Amino acid sequence: MLKLYHGPAAANGLKCLAALKEKNLEFESVFIDFDKFEQHEPWYLKVNPEGQVPALDHEGEIFTDSSVINEYLEDAFPDALPLRPRDAVGAARMRYWNKYIDEHVMESVSAHGWNTRIHQFASSFSEEDFEKYIARIPLKRQRVKWRKAREGFPTEQLNEAREKVETSVNRVEAQLQVTDWLVGNRFTLADINYYATAGFALARLFQGMISTEKTPRLMDWIERVAARPAIQAAMAVAPISAPPKG
Amino acid sequence: MLKLYHGPAAANGLKCLAALKEKNLEFESVFIDFDKFEQHEPWYLKVNPEGQVPALDHEGEIFTDSSVINEYLEDAFPDALPLRPRDAVGAARMRYWNKYIDEHVMESVSAHGWNTRIHQFASSFSEEDFEKYIARIPLKRQRVKWRKAREGFPTEQLNEAREKVETSVNRVEAQLQVTDWLVGNRFTLADINYYATAGFALARLFQGMISTEKTPRLMDWIERVAARPAIQAAMAVAPISAPPKG
Repeated sequence: MLKLYHGPAAANGLKCLAALKEKNLEFESVFIDFDKFEQHEPWYLKVNPEGQVPALDHEGEIFTDSSVINEYLEDAFPDALPLRPRDAVGAARMRYWNKYIDEHVMESVSAHGWNTRIHQFASSFSEEDFEKYIARIPLKRQRVKWRKAREGFPTEQLNEAREKVETSVNRVEAQLQVTDWLVGNRFTLADINYYATAGFALARLFQGMISTEKTPRLMDWIERVAARPAIQAAMAVAPISAPPKG
Repeated sequence: MLKLYHGPAAANGLKCLAALKEKNLEFESVFIDFDKFEQHEPWYLKVNPEGQVPALDHEGEIFTDSSVINEYLEDAFPDALPLRPRDAVGAARMRYWNKYIDEHVMESVSAHGWNTRIHQFASSFSEEDFEKYIARIPLKRQRVKWRKAREGFPTEQLNEAREKVETSVNRVEAQLQVTDWLVGNRFTLADINYYATAGFALARLFQGMISTEKTPRLMDWIERVAARPAIQAAMAVAPISAPPKG
């Protein structure tokens, strides 16, 4: 039995929801309510001591980190629809994209996301209540991030982040001039990763960065990903129409 | 035919050299002389447009990023000694460590390494010559890093980096109280990664951080890794006894 602990269907949570739906694997969804800081509740820290979502429970074994979880699903369910190329070269190309997205795109998109949505949420608490919640967060880097969200991220960091995201947009646009998907002509975990990390939020968070004139291939790719039934099913598990606040 | 482009047997270069030697794969070694900024020479940018080493050439296909290369070797040479657990759970545990080391340890060790060895090297050029070399570097983040190496890294960054490295030391020590190697009782790519990224340089770069009193398991693990014939063979490909300068 598979059980996924996740927040709203965005970013890392969407990555795993999308992979599970694309592979058509049955799973129990456990929604973690960021509005209630449930990811830092003692009961959840027993699942993931880092207080991060998503986390996957597969027959009692716990896996964390969305990219690790998604490769695990490939290894553990070899008979389900593959989202990782079966050839060594293709798998390497996919992992190169995943590493690039995880290491050089994810935090940059996140800084802008947190600086808008989560800023409002984090500012809504009294200093005392806020510090009480912060004190429960296991990872120091997450405590730092929450404080920045409350105070507002430094302009320099936001500018650098925007530049990094724009670099990724140009790289993806260039790749899509050569191949239908990020890795050759098959939809893979790399497409899921870029869509969940950046693609679905680019138009909202980075106005003017993408358009049918500047980035036609990327615009088309975003539409193609968004139209996939599995992606729509993943989004429907925990709709973000009510803005995620935590 | 395998060909590895690499600098001195340290950090990312050592990661791939060690994997190739452990798997007993024949390869041609192409030494990239950092002292001559060869990694930014036009001929090398044709191999890796990012101007980063190592890079692997396997029958004309080029692979970059040491963690991606090492998993590629697992996929491409299934009959060689495996360095990735064959079971899905073990592979996930290994990838979790690799992501943690790549994302939260590597740059922190590197900041201290660059701030000492590479600082001397980068300071030895006239402003004009230095800028001439910097202008050739494709990745902006590497240009920023070279400038910091010349000027000296900010104290705050070095302090934060030291703290992150110490966190990793404590996590590894805790793991080694439970298992012989980072992932269960088999030597894997995670051991290679932590040794090449941090282990072999901890005593030199972070005085007082490790000792037989404070971190007995880690000290023993460092000795066990260093004693492996394949690791010694990897180090011998491009000895770092003459300090790498670039």
